[in-house]
Amino acid sequence: MDPKDKAFFGLLSLVPEGEILKRIESLSERLSRRGVDAAVIMQNVDMFYFSGTIQRGFLAVSRQGEAVLYVQRDFERASAESPLEVRRARGLGELKSVEFLRRARTIGLELDVLPVATFFRLKDLLEGADLVDISSDILSLRAVKSPYEIRQMEEASRITARVLSSVTSFCRAGMTETELDALLQAEGRKLGHHGWLRMRGFNQEMTPVAVLSGPNGSFPSYVDGPLKGLGTCPAIGYGSSSKRIREGEPIVVDYGAGYNGYLTDETRTYVIGRLPRVLEDAYKVSLEILESFEAHAHPGKNGRELFEMALGIVGRYGLEEHFMGYGENRVRFVAHGIGLEINEWPVIAMGREEELKEGMVFALEPKFVFPGKGAVGVEVDYVVEKRWLRRLNSLSTDLFRL
Amino acid sequence: MDPKDKAFFGLLSLVPEGEILKRIESLSERLSRRGVDAAVIMQNVDMFYFSGTIQRGFLAVSRQGEAVLYVQRDFERASAESPLEVRRARGLGELKSVEFLRRARTIGLELDVLPVATFFRLKDLLEGADLVDISSDILSLRAVKSPYEIRQMEEASRITARVLSSVTSFCRAGMTETELDALLQAEGRKLGHHGWLRMRGFNQEMTPVAVLSGPNGSFPSYVDGPLKGLGTCPAIGYGSSSKRIREGEPIVVDYGAGYNGYLTDETRTYVIGRLPRVLEDAYKVSLEILESFEAHAHPGKNGRELFEMALGIVGRYGLEEHFMGYGENRVRFVAHGIGLEINEWPVIAMGREEELKEGMVFALEPKFVFPGKGAVGVEVDYVVEKRWLRRLNSLSTDLFRL
Repeated sequence: MDPKDKAFFGLLSLVPEGEILKRIESLSERLSRRGVDAAVIMQNVDMFYFSGTIQRGFLAVSRQGEAVLYVQRDFERASAESPLEVRRARGLGELKSVEFLRRARTIGLELDVLPVATFFRLKDLLEGADLVDISSDILSLRAVKSPYEIRQMEEASRITARVLSSVTSFCRAGMTETELDALLQAEGRKLGHHGWLRMRGFNQEMTPVAVLSGPNGSFPSYVDGPLKGLGTCPAIGYGSSSKRIREGEPIVVDYGAGYNGYLTDETRTYVIGRLPRVLEDAYKVSLEILESFEAHAHPGKNGRELFEMALGIVGRYGLEEHFMGYGENRVRFVAHGIGLEINEWPVIAMGREEELKEGMVFALEPKFVFPGKGAVGVEVDYVVEKRWLRRLNSLSTDLFRL
Repeated sequence: MDPKDKAFFGLLSLVPEGEILKRIESLSERLSRRGVDAAVIMQNVDMFYFSGTIQRGFLAVSRQGEAVLYVQRDFERASAESPLEVRRARGLGELKSVEFLRRARTIGLELDVLPVATFFRLKDLLEGADLVDISSDILSLRAVKSPYEIRQMEEASRITARVLSSVTSFCRAGMTETELDALLQAEGRKLGHHGWLRMRGFNQEMTPVAVLSGPNGSFPSYVDGPLKGLGTCPAIGYGSSSKRIREGEPIVVDYGAGYNGYLTDETRTYVIGRLPRVLEDAYKVSLEILESFEAHAHPGKNGRELFEMALGIVGRYGLEEHFMGYGENRVRFVAHGIGLEINEWPVIAMGREEELKEGMVFALEPKFVFPGKGAVGVEVDYVVEKRWLRRLNSLSTDLFRL
């Protein structure tokens, strides 16, 4: 890198060396415990988590703790961003040159995201080795955040809080949902949003903002969340639409900013004038669910228990049919982990027995959907601390009246 | 759907029935020709292309032309958006109930994108059938656009042209690249950009805008394109950065809008004041390459010939080391197909023998990179017509002086 470029490169804030070394150590331990000899990491977010950089290539890690990043493009940049040993690679064929992979009998891969065609190439190159799925090991490591990671999320959350506050100055009756969406995106970017949100998995896409007003809040789509929306066309079939925002209907804004790779995901409900009584009452139930989490969601509680606690509250108000979607479109979770991707662990849902641990971060999103009328609800990001939950930002969760 | 929702649903413009039926017919023919009995389509963009909707589920197509869309979520919406037969599915298990899949000996899948874990589930469910890759068949069908598709791309291109023109009013010395990026994104969204861009493949992500000024135009990253950029952080490691834009340096803006699912991808170069002579001269070579394509890129010409034609021009000016990247960071293509995804066929590159056909649409992007100084170049979207190329919009390709 020439000196001019080096100064320019200084605009980036790198992941501290200690973070990366600790993550590699945890992965090696996990491999050992599972009897897996080595791992080959290829997905961009996992590569970033374990190496501090995203490059074209692969990261090889052994159960003994060796870690080498093989890079096709860009070697120089990888060397500047990652504290790990970086070697040049001409392509995947370089896998054959990695001593500890040649010796390995069992090799772990990210089988939840790796495409079949790539897998068969790896199988040829790693001949003889048993290829096993280590995606849940990676996801469970990533679920517990370090203080460094939580600081990045607090920065992201500051942007999110400012963008969600700015709705009150941008939103006017008569403007379309996509116009408000555009203003909020620009605002977030100006405040330092790193660029885009990531969601793990095949076909997973993530709109950067969703503005859902009135009936758009209850319109169905394929999305695996409580609120869906019409979107702008069948090809972008969820989220903000070209519908105009009107007085007296709920306006739900779901927004997430990213900072240094780390995401946030929050929602507030707004109204010009007043909401119909039934919606305003349901909104209060959302807040009651937040309060009950703040009182009871400690380390040691599991996803199922907490989901049932939320259902208990919903049941007391007879809102079961409206909770987290309507009718057959309801989803069976009330909170999801968040970090480098928007769909991390823990998941607070029916049948999830994993316990909360200190350092986990999740987005709690109790929302209610009323066909033809729209949706109301709130979404707040929490860090699990030793004895309680802490909100990532201090933005009010009251209904915003414009 | 209740009547109120039906009226609201009218905001969407659906894919005409004739389009979908013709695409299914072409796919069946292709399957027959390859001796494949049926296809199971799961990737969201391919599902949209062949059914007119994106839902959670799968599309089953037989070589005899039967096509049924099995939908987990959302059945009602799928039925409204797709002219195909739509059936409810509880999950992938529904594959076992499809008569023509049970009879099939060979079944085609999208192995370039389908994750390994999903593939093994399909293998269990489709027991006995040979599972083969039909992704190139799908990509070659999608490469030739219908008049309907070209009209959608013209609409997208109108937005792109207006956004790229607006750079002259938004851009000021002293603002950061991400500030300009934010303004351009908001402008596009207000003009009707459908939401986001799509890029096919594992780890493929797409920034909606890239503003690369001065040395950021030559900064390396993993991106498979001529220009990369620093980005905002190692996790978003390419594109616009927090560098401030200055007088006398090239400002390259790469932008694409989408309309009804269809994308465009264009680039212009701007400067506040004057460019250094060497960059201005290289810019003229970009324009000469456009002209030579407009004169010689007819149906029947192949990717290799056209790439060599571009190289011939570059060689006459001694700019080989700077063309499409610098040094070892050069990429070996000069144009790529574009449609529902940003990396479609044809690819005009070394070693590509496929011929241009009427109805193909590609982005031609001759660009030059000068380490430490930045990049210059242009990117224009062309439709291949019977005898010539036609630009999708009429935005000037001259260097913009601010």
